[in-house]
Amino acid sequence: MSAEQAAAMIQPGWNVGMSGFTGAGYPKAVPRALAAHIEAAHAAGRPFRIGLWTGASTAPELDGALAKVDGIDMRLPYQSDPTVRAQINSGHMQYVDIHLSHVAQFVWFGFLGHLNVAVIEVAGVLPDGRLIPSTSVGNNKTWIEQADYVILEVNHRQSAALEGFHDVYYGAALPPHRKPIPLETADQRIGEPYLRCDPAKVIAVVDTDAPDRNSVFTPPDAQSAAIAQHIIDFLQHEVAQGRLPKSLLPLQSGVGNIANAVLAGLDRGPFAGLTAYTEVLQDGMLDMLRSGTLQSASCTALSLSPDAADYFNAHIDDFRGRILIRPQEISNHPELIRRMGVLAMNAMIEADIYGNVNSTHLMGSAIMNGIGGSGDFARNAYISMFMTPSIAKDGSISCIVPMASHVDHTEHDVQVIVTEQGLADLRGLAPQQRARRIIDTCAHPTYRDALHDYLARARLQANGQHTPHVLTDALSWHERYLRTGTMLP
Amino acid sequence: MSAEQAAAMIQPGWNVGMSGFTGAGYPKAVPRALAAHIEAAHAAGRPFRIGLWTGASTAPELDGALAKVDGIDMRLPYQSDPTVRAQINSGHMQYVDIHLSHVAQFVWFGFLGHLNVAVIEVAGVLPDGRLIPSTSVGNNKTWIEQADYVILEVNHRQSAALEGFHDVYYGAALPPHRKPIPLETADQRIGEPYLRCDPAKVIAVVDTDAPDRNSVFTPPDAQSAAIAQHIIDFLQHEVAQGRLPKSLLPLQSGVGNIANAVLAGLDRGPFAGLTAYTEVLQDGMLDMLRSGTLQSASCTALSLSPDAADYFNAHIDDFRGRILIRPQEISNHPELIRRMGVLAMNAMIEADIYGNVNSTHLMGSAIMNGIGGSGDFARNAYISMFMTPSIAKDGSISCIVPMASHVDHTEHDVQVIVTEQGLADLRGLAPQQRARRIIDTCAHPTYRDALHDYLARARLQANGQHTPHVLTDALSWHERYLRTGTMLP
Repeated sequence: MSAEQAAAMIQPGWNVGMSGFTGAGYPKAVPRALAAHIEAAHAAGRPFRIGLWTGASTAPELDGALAKVDGIDMRLPYQSDPTVRAQINSGHMQYVDIHLSHVAQFVWFGFLGHLNVAVIEVAGVLPDGRLIPSTSVGNNKTWIEQADYVILEVNHRQSAALEGFHDVYYGAALPPHRKPIPLETADQRIGEPYLRCDPAKVIAVVDTDAPDRNSVFTPPDAQSAAIAQHIIDFLQHEVAQGRLPKSLLPLQSGVGNIANAVLAGLDRGPFAGLTAYTEVLQDGMLDMLRSGTLQSASCTALSLSPDAADYFNAHIDDFRGRILIRPQEISNHPELIRRMGVLAMNAMIEADIYGNVNSTHLMGSAIMNGIGGSGDFARNAYISMFMTPSIAKDGSISCIVPMASHVDHTEHDVQVIVTEQGLADLRGLAPQQRARRIIDTCAHPTYRDALHDYLARARLQANGQHTPHVLTDALSWHERYLRTGTMLP
Repeated sequence: MSAEQAAAMIQPGWNVGMSGFTGAGYPKAVPRALAAHIEAAHAAGRPFRIGLWTGASTAPELDGALAKVDGIDMRLPYQSDPTVRAQINSGHMQYVDIHLSHVAQFVWFGFLGHLNVAVIEVAGVLPDGRLIPSTSVGNNKTWIEQADYVILEVNHRQSAALEGFHDVYYGAALPPHRKPIPLETADQRIGEPYLRCDPAKVIAVVDTDAPDRNSVFTPPDAQSAAIAQHIIDFLQHEVAQGRLPKSLLPLQSGVGNIANAVLAGLDRGPFAGLTAYTEVLQDGMLDMLRSGTLQSASCTALSLSPDAADYFNAHIDDFRGRILIRPQEISNHPELIRRMGVLAMNAMIEADIYGNVNSTHLMGSAIMNGIGGSGDFARNAYISMFMTPSIAKDGSISCIVPMASHVDHTEHDVQVIVTEQGLADLRGLAPQQRARRIIDTCAHPTYRDALHDYLARARLQANGQHTPHVLTDALSWHERYLRTGTMLP
């Protein structure tokens, strides 16, 4: 049926589980039709908002379109859309920011309420009703199983050759009936290439023909290249010390330009025979698979720029068996990340001198995107690395601060901090030792003295020397930025 | 040989891995002899300090004795000794506070440096050299395997009948060779009742005869009883809603009087056929095993008061097969906690209105004890609960504050907060919704209006409405306490 007919079945107040993970595999037509439907309802004076659950971030046609018509009451678990962000930060939209590995099980446990309908993009439907997933799996398995109704978008633009790239694990259960997940390597299959779906639940099938709307990556700049080089040097050193195998351990890389630059650096670097166990396969990893630096990659989404997507589709058989796309509760599962000993590399907004990391909030109050899978990987990694340029906004913001204005990853989960200035290896260090190393190695020279001065004053004034702080000054850099537009005095 | 002879072999600057977990199974004689040795060295002008690694907290004869002679340079991973705490807070001792599940693997990975000697209390030695563990296993397996030398204390006061109560898993490996850990229920055996030990490493065997020095629990007071009742009501409600089985899921309980009171409440409560998967088996759980409310318990330490220890030793066969004592990397393993769906109940120092939890620091800077296993359990639990009285120090401290002065567990990992005032169920709530529920349900009436006032001002002034804060005021309650002795204006 048409997207409009399908969207018309979605009722005000429903929780809607949509496919989509970092701009890959989201439904292209029903969300926009739903937005039009909501806009018409509002024009007629009828309230119409939904709870919107996804895998992670989607695209303007989904998050943006629904937010613009004021159609989202509650959003989970991760977003990166400017309109959604603005509505969260204006207090108009509720946002529940959840570790990505937790989402599916919380729905199964009954913690997040009832899921009324799933809207899922697929690449195809088999004669027996099984579904060929699209460019992401995300939470689709859970949405399809938990929702009362299922609306399918069959996107004919996605390559039919995607069939076979997915590995959907159907061995999950609820406690106390859970078993070990039998996955030991990134390239191992433990599930099926298809999503199962009860045909009786399917209330609409909509044909679409539209590409994923992923953004182009900026070419690596000098800062990102420097961060990448610090990480490569560190990994080489760890191999030399016997603390890492020559082919390293499975890589995890967050999203964004810095992550992509690090991957480009690794591709030019000295390593071979690598694997990846990650959420999102970006351009950088596709390049590594092309060059052979990367043998195989496990992910939950193929989040490729338009050019990279074209290359992937034109050479899809080169990647067959080397890329596996799994549900996000498997790509991000603590059990598997810890077992495999993943090398976790995630971007951050700021770190404080003790190594507490803020991944989500600007100046303590305003959400940027969300925690995503960074916590799943950081806590369970073999080595947990966080990276950022040392300054932002032309130097008016130091990304190394006295006290993080919000904490997503505590010092217990942060072993390495990297900026273009250098890499601070924090393993086995006590807080004051961490502080000196972070300031000397990672902070921008413009802010280094002020950070040392803060630490010195804290050592004089604090009520304890384990993690000394001056509480009246701890957040003063952020406060000054809000008041004057710069953290500089 | 004598403890003095054994201690004399420990050299300045060594890292020493000692047994001991929350006052159970720590060596009784060698640490004191080492302290005397260190004191003599210092008197003679010779520097002598060690790195002290344990399972968790020990006792005055170990931590206290070595700290009093200024013998500890670096301490990990958890302590609760007043002298050690004072030295950390004076800046004289380095303290590396690590998730308890991370410690063993970090040593295996080579992240914490070289372990020179292990000093391990055992209950006995078999003719073939295998060791009968004492009242805790903790990190003993790792210390024995990783240390160059092993010193054994055979404590004849520990019951010989402890033989068979332990389950030491020898299937661990380093990535990329790790396999699934084949444990599915709290009462399942996956290992051996003995510690393996290369006899060639054993440089001393010292006989001792002394009890574990565990403290007496205070009888549950009205506050603790109220916290317990809120938790019981909540769990009953979850069962009624179908979100928990009638026999619940395996319980984890932190240490201390409140935890013990909650267990006492559960023992009188409506539940039967329970199990526990926890770090520490305290008096409260022993009582539950005695009454039959608890079928079985898995732990890494038997941390019993003297009376409870006497009862346990006198009736040890009643508990055989119902208590299993495991290495702490198994008792606290994310894989297993998540698989079993543990109900995690941990004490905290304070929570902020958004549900970020501080478990370790007083007024932002001073360490109290350490994070222990609270992060291992909170992150991977089925339901993660944190509890505290709503006020401390006769009301001069509110344990619900505008912003936590230190964060160990972020809002992403905190689903339930309980005080004697009530239980705030935070599942599925956005930050401002969490704030209103925490203030209304958990805060003490003395501070409730001031918290609402903070939230109202933050909503007016903050740069974003996701987690609104007034940065100039966020830590002002702590600052006022440090300045005036009370958080009250």
